[in-house]
Amino acid sequence: MFGRIDHIGVAVESIDDTLPLYAQHYAMELVHRERVEEQGVEAVLLDVGENHVELLQPLGPDTPVGKFLANRGPGLHHVAYQVADIEAVLESLKGAGIRLIDETPRIGIRNSRVAFLHPKSSGGVLTEIVQPAEDH
Amino acid sequence: MFGRIDHIGVAVESIDDTLPLYAQHYAMELVHRERVEEQGVEAVLLDVGENHVELLQPLGPDTPVGKFLANRGPGLHHVAYQVADIEAVLESLKGAGIRLIDETPRIGIRNSRVAFLHPKSSGGVLTEIVQPAEDH
Repeated sequence: MFGRIDHIGVAVESIDDTLPLYAQHYAMELVHRERVEEQGVEAVLLDVGENHVELLQPLGPDTPVGKFLANRGPGLHHVAYQVADIEAVLESLKGAGIRLIDETPRIGIRNSRVAFLHPKSSGGVLTEIVQPAEDH
Repeated sequence: MFGRIDHIGVAVESIDDTLPLYAQHYAMELVHRERVEEQGVEAVLLDVGENHVELLQPLGPDTPVGKFLANRGPGLHHVAYQVADIEAVLESLKGAGIRLIDETPRIGIRNSRVAFLHPKSSGGVLTEIVQPAEDH
């Protein structure tokens, strides 16, 4: 059902202050930067093998990532698993009784189609499923 | 430097209660179970593509994962990146001024060699590097 870990999402106060750690010390290639208004974040993607690290800087304190930072400080925010057919996977999860934040996919970073599961149904882990755009 | 995400570590109250979510609903294959006394956990590994999910159940409340659960509840605990030469990577990170919890590798799950970086040096993310045993 899940092909691989697509990415881990990391909440940061400042992408620019955090990039040296990932791009220089960890030597991950920065491959994308995007402002995702709908999710209230500025985000970058870095490659690590076929997986990614997504750094998330909130656009303001009242966004989900802004509140996460205020409560917990910077750190691991979510995990995303890659799928080939997001509708089929959502149907299967719904059938298994998993509570969904997104009943239908929405557009995520780099034109992917994404949906979040509710942490109360996913063992306390904010879990995203991602169907990448065809050119990624 | 890092080949891929080796695994995400997820803190759970009970592996047995959490396994249905991962093994059945997420259809991940359970590939390993081990009691790692030194780290104070019972752990299982599930495959997701070439990556893994590691579920961590504390052996007691005074263990690191036991304290994590008491403070934050179940959820994402750490990320581990796979490396081919753990000593070389540790030298490189130390040279970059990264603070290490483990200056030299120790034996981790499934006979891997592992070391943890200090979250204060890794953007609040408890970060592990892993050199898998040759047969994995």
